[in-house]
Amino acid sequence: MAVMTHRIEHDLLGELAVPEQALYGIHTQRARENFSISGASVGQFPDLVVALADIKQAAAEVNHELGILPQAKAQAIVAACKELRAGALHEQFVVDMIQGGAGTSTNMNANEVIANRALELMGHGRGRYEYLHPNEDVNLSQSTNDVYPTALRLALHAGGVRLLQALASLREAFQERAQAFSGVLKMGRTQLQDAVPMTLGQEFASYAAMLAGDERALAHALHGLLEINLGGTAIGTGLNAPDGYGNRVRDRLARLTGLALTTAPDLIAATQDTDALVALSAVLKRVAIKLSKTSNDLRLLSSGPRAGLGEIVLPPMQAGSSIMPGKINPVIPEVVNQIAFEVIGNDLTVCMAAEAGQLQLNAFEPIIAFALFKSLAHLRAGCAALQTRCVADIRANEDALRTSVHESIGLVTALSPYLGYERAGKLARDAQATGRRVAELVLERKLMSAAQLDEALGVQRLTGQA
Amino acid sequence: MAVMTHRIEHDLLGELAVPEQALYGIHTQRARENFSISGASVGQFPDLVVALADIKQAAAEVNHELGILPQAKAQAIVAACKELRAGALHEQFVVDMIQGGAGTSTNMNANEVIANRALELMGHGRGRYEYLHPNEDVNLSQSTNDVYPTALRLALHAGGVRLLQALASLREAFQERAQAFSGVLKMGRTQLQDAVPMTLGQEFASYAAMLAGDERALAHALHGLLEINLGGTAIGTGLNAPDGYGNRVRDRLARLTGLALTTAPDLIAATQDTDALVALSAVLKRVAIKLSKTSNDLRLLSSGPRAGLGEIVLPPMQAGSSIMPGKINPVIPEVVNQIAFEVIGNDLTVCMAAEAGQLQLNAFEPIIAFALFKSLAHLRAGCAALQTRCVADIRANEDALRTSVHESIGLVTALSPYLGYERAGKLARDAQATGRRVAELVLERKLMSAAQLDEALGVQRLTGQA
Amino acid sequence: MAVMTHRIEHDLLGELAVPEQALYGIHTQRARENFSISGASVGQFPDLVVALADIKQAAAEVNHELGILPQAKAQAIVAACKELRAGALHEQFVVDMIQGGAGTSTNMNANEVIANRALELMGHGRGRYEYLHPNEDVNLSQSTNDVYPTALRLALHAGGVRLLQALASLREAFQERAQAFSGVLKMGRTQLQDAVPMTLGQEFASYAAMLAGDERALAHALHGLLEINLGGTAIGTGLNAPDGYGNRVRDRLARLTGLALTTAPDLIAATQDTDALVALSAVLKRVAIKLSKTSNDLRLLSSGPRAGLGEIVLPPMQAGSSIMPGKINPVIPEVVNQIAFEVIGNDLTVCMAAEAGQLQLNAFEPIIAFALFKSLAHLRAGCAALQTRCVADIRANEDALRTSVHESIGLVTALSPYLGYERAGKLARDAQATGRRVAELVLERKLMSAAQLDEALGVQRLTGQA
Amino acid sequence: MAVMTHRIEHDLLGELAVPEQALYGIHTQRARENFSISGASVGQFPDLVVALADIKQAAAEVNHELGILPQAKAQAIVAACKELRAGALHEQFVVDMIQGGAGTSTNMNANEVIANRALELMGHGRGRYEYLHPNEDVNLSQSTNDVYPTALRLALHAGGVRLLQALASLREAFQERAQAFSGVLKMGRTQLQDAVPMTLGQEFASYAAMLAGDERALAHALHGLLEINLGGTAIGTGLNAPDGYGNRVRDRLARLTGLALTTAPDLIAATQDTDALVALSAVLKRVAIKLSKTSNDLRLLSSGPRAGLGEIVLPPMQAGSSIMPGKINPVIPEVVNQIAFEVIGNDLTVCMAAEAGQLQLNAFEPIIAFALFKSLAHLRAGCAALQTRCVADIRANEDALRTSVHESIGLVTALSPYLGYERAGKLARDAQATGRRVAELVLERKLMSAAQLDEALGVQRLTGQA
Repeated sequence: MAVMTHRIEHDLLGELAVPEQALYGIHTQRARENFSISGASVGQFPDLVVALADIKQAAAEVNHELGILPQAKAQAIVAACKELRAGALHEQFVVDMIQGGAGTSTNMNANEVIANRALELMGHGRGRYEYLHPNEDVNLSQSTNDVYPTALRLALHAGGVRLLQALASLREAFQERAQAFSGVLKMGRTQLQDAVPMTLGQEFASYAAMLAGDERALAHALHGLLEINLGGTAIGTGLNAPDGYGNRVRDRLARLTGLALTTAPDLIAATQDTDALVALSAVLKRVAIKLSKTSNDLRLLSSGPRAGLGEIVLPPMQAGSSIMPGKINPVIPEVVNQIAFEVIGNDLTVCMAAEAGQLQLNAFEPIIAFALFKSLAHLRAGCAALQTRCVADIRANEDALRTSVHESIGLVTALSPYLGYERAGKLARDAQATGRRVAELVLERKLMSAAQLDEALGVQRLTGQA
Repeated sequence: MAVMTHRIEHDLLGELAVPEQALYGIHTQRARENFSISGASVGQFPDLVVALADIKQAAAEVNHELGILPQAKAQAIVAACKELRAGALHEQFVVDMIQGGAGTSTNMNANEVIANRALELMGHGRGRYEYLHPNEDVNLSQSTNDVYPTALRLALHAGGVRLLQALASLREAFQERAQAFSGVLKMGRTQLQDAVPMTLGQEFASYAAMLAGDERALAHALHGLLEINLGGTAIGTGLNAPDGYGNRVRDRLARLTGLALTTAPDLIAATQDTDALVALSAVLKRVAIKLSKTSNDLRLLSSGPRAGLGEIVLPPMQAGSSIMPGKINPVIPEVVNQIAFEVIGNDLTVCMAAEAGQLQLNAFEPIIAFALFKSLAHLRAGCAALQTRCVADIRANEDALRTSVHESIGLVTALSPYLGYERAGKLARDAQATGRRVAELVLERKLMSAAQLDEALGVQRLTGQA
Repeated sequence: MAVMTHRIEHDLLGELAVPEQALYGIHTQRARENFSISGASVGQFPDLVVALADIKQAAAEVNHELGILPQAKAQAIVAACKELRAGALHEQFVVDMIQGGAGTSTNMNANEVIANRALELMGHGRGRYEYLHPNEDVNLSQSTNDVYPTALRLALHAGGVRLLQALASLREAFQERAQAFSGVLKMGRTQLQDAVPMTLGQEFASYAAMLAGDERALAHALHGLLEINLGGTAIGTGLNAPDGYGNRVRDRLARLTGLALTTAPDLIAATQDTDALVALSAVLKRVAIKLSKTSNDLRLLSSGPRAGLGEIVLPPMQAGSSIMPGKINPVIPEVVNQIAFEVIGNDLTVCMAAEAGQLQLNAFEPIIAFALFKSLAHLRAGCAALQTRCVADIRANEDALRTSVHESIGLVTALSPYLGYERAGKLARDAQATGRRVAELVLERKLMSAAQLDEALGVQRLTGQA
Repeated sequence: MAVMTHRIEHDLLGELAVPEQALYGIHTQRARENFSISGASVGQFPDLVVALADIKQAAAEVNHELGILPQAKAQAIVAACKELRAGALHEQFVVDMIQGGAGTSTNMNANEVIANRALELMGHGRGRYEYLHPNEDVNLSQSTNDVYPTALRLALHAGGVRLLQALASLREAFQERAQAFSGVLKMGRTQLQDAVPMTLGQEFASYAAMLAGDERALAHALHGLLEINLGGTAIGTGLNAPDGYGNRVRDRLARLTGLALTTAPDLIAATQDTDALVALSAVLKRVAIKLSKTSNDLRLLSSGPRAGLGEIVLPPMQAGSSIMPGKINPVIPEVVNQIAFEVIGNDLTVCMAAEAGQLQLNAFEPIIAFALFKSLAHLRAGCAALQTRCVADIRANEDALRTSVHESIGLVTALSPYLGYERAGKLARDAQATGRRVAELVLERKLMSAAQLDEALGVQRLTGQA
């Protein structure tokens, strides 16, 4: 069994042993002990680690340009950052995502890992901070309070772009089905009661249309993430950042990430403000609401097989029951519903954390970030499952749908312009009472001619596609 | 046009004109101007006005017994309180339910109305506080911080008892229908897919059973409201209340209200604590969840008339559509759903307000109270509507229900102990593919004898009522 | 006592007595009996009544143009609508805001009031629908399912514009105070711990800056309300609306209201979709979060008078306590907090109702509308109170603020670039342990010269306003 | 590199390859592919795996007793269950916690792992279900719909008991500090304004008292989990469970777990009902609200070190800032706040999922369970951190506290019974205006004698501890 060796580091509070092989240092070690909450570490969120490295690299480069960071240090820091950006060393980000301290531990985890990796690259031992210091060099011109919010925005943007793609693919699957079902007449329903006819294609096209609206809203929210407060340092006054640093580091970061970043006009406001995160969460909630409603509809339309609506058939994904042989359940819409419920709960978490900010900072951004990262990832997984394991392979029970229209009492609405609202109402009542078809009664009672009836009940007219 | 005359009152901040005919005074007048928010005044909540009067009367009586309030003043205060308790003068409670100041304005509204009415009864003019003072006499030995929370608990208890009665009546309506439907066989459904048979009576009995659970939970929460902090005065230390006051005033109040009140063991905790309100809100949310789920089911089971499940028929309450003649919608369950959504939102309001308490007081009890009063009243109205305008007159489509069982593929589950899970699964698949009945296939394939089949599919066995 | 006389009207369900003097008819009467929930009637929301009248007038005019509504009827309908739009007859809108039926009762209340008023103008008696019919004439080419959502959007837009103005005025009050406090140095705080210096002006400017962001978000959400589904009738297929009706009625409505209305590209999606309402609610929640956070800060900064932060003094609005003489409480921020908690709860109500939509319609728009109308109105009242009764008259305790900076340990951060992070940390520790000022220790230990110190601690440098 | 070998299993949908070394089978394999959402597998929740094994063992024993499961199979199943209950093989529970199918995949994962492990113990190969079948033998007399809800209740009970212990320890830490601070006089505050005196001991005792209330509420909710629906099978009718099975299996399970389990009186209600889970969630939210409020207070009371209230000092746990040397932040209360926000969000997830249940089942229990497991675990971690890393080592700034009382204007309240409310109010105003002490003014103006003043301001009288 391997002997675990340690090195001793010190800070404001005294000394502490850090595992010798760790690239992180004393701050991270203390934070690890302080926050043993969720088991989810920062390193499990690669977008966040990469974003931190993007920022640290941009800062090092600009600090060097401005003459406050020597070339050797800058080169080593940049090299370490490049490794992180390429996906290496993420396992060194060990602090819990649920942490006190407003993200300081995440920022210090980055500072320490980069410092120690840079020290190695410079030929020094880990922990030899006299050669390159996590705070004085890696964190130079920075504060957690501008680095952490900026990193969150970059990382959330990356996750948001992926969700946007998943939404688009799901929308396209609905559009494809809408095309396939364009000739399938069915009864539309309002308030779960038979209303007036439409096509199944129109129904599926409407899901696609609503998703398109969600995509636009998400894109708008993602755009809001591109305004950053880097350069504001501790509270937005820019204390300890050299002249010109803010604009330069933003431009450098924009180049590194390929994003059209802007600097917030009021950095004191921006330091304490979580609005862009609240707005993103609101859009994710909106997407969740829509996906849940859509899943509810799919489950309802596919209810049966015999004692349900039975309008569509979802592709079977697994046996449905441990006791009921042959039962198939709509497991994919069901999992999407549950993701939606989680995302809506996460939005409340974000809301409470945002409201709890005090004075010049919101100390609760870590839980906001954790909630948003989960919402983004789970929504994306849900969209992908819904697209590939459900929507793409939905079939229609065309015969049953057609019959339901002909037998429907809702057809009287289409006759209302010919008969008037009150006479049409009486016709509906009689059809319901006798169990007969509306068209039969109309002809029998000579309320309209067969030709008039055909015109009134023509598919194009009924479905507004004239 | 009548000339509005005023009297001048003064307070800490200076002087202010109060309408001459008003029984309230300067504090109320300022509060009225400060809080013009919801348009809902305290006087619209008679339970609250009565509870305040209960407390003021009990306090006056005990203060007199303890020798710190002269008999004449005590008598006048008690007489004024009795008028309020009998329902008079509530229109004098003009402050907005949404108010800053932790309820001080509501308490002062009561102090001023009682003082001025008592002054009248003593033969003095309104505003002549040298004879009887809102703070020094009516509020003697009290603080808003013990009076207001106590009054809220009494008032909420009264509203809660009425909701409890409405829940019981609704439960009985479900039980009565369960009885009526006890012989109606139907398919049970899980995940909206046909599962195994049951009776419609069992289904309705389950709604009653769940409501019974809600009644128990509500009764438990109402019990929690009976622990009060009266006697704690400003922060729970009882400053300025005479020895023995706390126990005496609680006993007096218990006698006046007929409630088994107890005094909280730690009055400092009780002064700042909103737990009993949070717990009540949680139960109201639970009731809302259940009513919403039940309403969803009723709407689903009554969907149709032709392109829906059509298992039950709700009594028609109004024409359903301005354009679709003959359409009838499930408007009563729909309104219950919406009440539920409002109550669930109100619970969040309560939660946020409770969390926002600071140090020795929660300044946000007014919004907690407002939310809870609305939830109680609306839930009660919803239960009453659901009982009298929906559940009591629900009818069953018995023939359709019976047919759905015989045609169901879910019957294979009942055969699974005879055939095994895998063979039963194949049978289900074949029935689905061929569109034939399960029983036919079993006999045709000689999987079971007719006698075995009859035994397996007997109603008692199927529905667990052997 | 007046004898109440009635007229008999009939509908699908039979006959019912309607008060003779009522302009509403049988549908409204039934709805009134069915929905006795909140006591808040549609008539209490003038924006909604006016919006309904706008739509009905536009529809009548277009129906006449298209030749399906005779001139006499059209003229009478338009005249009645103009009365409603001018503020008359709103008391005839008696249905409860919390109603089942997806808004049908609100739409029918409008149809019936307009029909009966038009009948009067035509010289006919109320209820003589053979001359002009609520459904066949007033509702011609319309359905509740396009009229009601459109009316909600128009009415919410009107309320939203007023909120936008209130937010702007509040922002200006913060800006004015920021100007007044621009020279007042104070300690900034992060995580409630002394951080680094700033000016009180910067702090107040940040509140203004954040409100400006909220204004932009609200304007964006209001813009989203301008996309309507009028012309889609029952489910979006436009059944029973004549060719060309949709575009014409939208243009007519745009002219009547002065709003740049557009028609949704997919009317089937638009009929069931509540996204614009969800998005508005999300912005109102965001505004609430910000107002609550700001109110929390104002209460914290004005805590005291002696055992608190005591940085600012809010204008006294009323005596604070019924038992504690001389106490003044921050009642205006407190009421704003509570409005915020209510709005956040309302957003959850909206969310649940939006998620509960099924198939071609969301039957729960009435509770969405009720929640949003309340949120808009209460937020507006809260902003106005915060502006006029609090922010505009805030004063600064300038001396105490200045002293707090000089005595602060947080000044070491400004010295960190000169001393390094670790030495600055030791200095902080020593200052804390000895109770001495940082500057004294620096000079005593000759860590920096007096000139260096002056430069490092200059106000411009400290506050980033160089 | 090892070659991954597979075995072929089949089900309703066809054949699928399962890793040869896997103890799980085809259902689990499909579920794994279908639900790739959260990355959190059932095996990471040992309480749940153990509870499933408890149930499967109890069922096997009772099935054998009732003569429907041969001894050899029963013994093998029991042996496999004992291994799981001892903590082995949990890594075989690979399905995602967020899953569609109402828990079927979790139940089938258990059935398959137990079957394959039992097959091994019987000397058969994995997948040789002809010798022992996951559905026909392991799941005998059971359905997911009674097994899964029962397992959740057992597992949540276990987690709840641990939280209860953590709450008790935290309460004791507050009590111990209350004892230590019992002589420390300080100003109480209401609405963040100086109110009347109390001791710091009283303040800390109130936190303990409120936690005690939470403990009682949690114990009550845990008791509610002990009512189970085992024996109800698919929808509560008990179809396919032999006579007497329900009571026997409950008794056996009670013996295995040591819990006082009862069977729900209406199994059809119990199968669809999530009330016990909703009630547990509500209590966890209540605990979260209280912990958040308490953390807010601790952060506020320890604000400073110089420009804050500075009443107490929290133990320093880590350096507070990457840029501000010497800064220490209240990181432990901050992490507790964030856990609370998460738990409150989780409660909303539970609420939405509970409301979404339909007819005879709630298909969304998996997300309810996931949310509750996280809330229980995180709250427990938060309580432990707050106890051991914060409360236990809090110190008081006694001198500053004492001074604040003597200088307080709030003392006038204690003089109000001597001077009257109005004169006391004037005294407060003058003290505030002049900056002088209340006691000085009283003596100077001869409003009271020194002896009277001493009596009025005695600690016992002030703090209600006479």
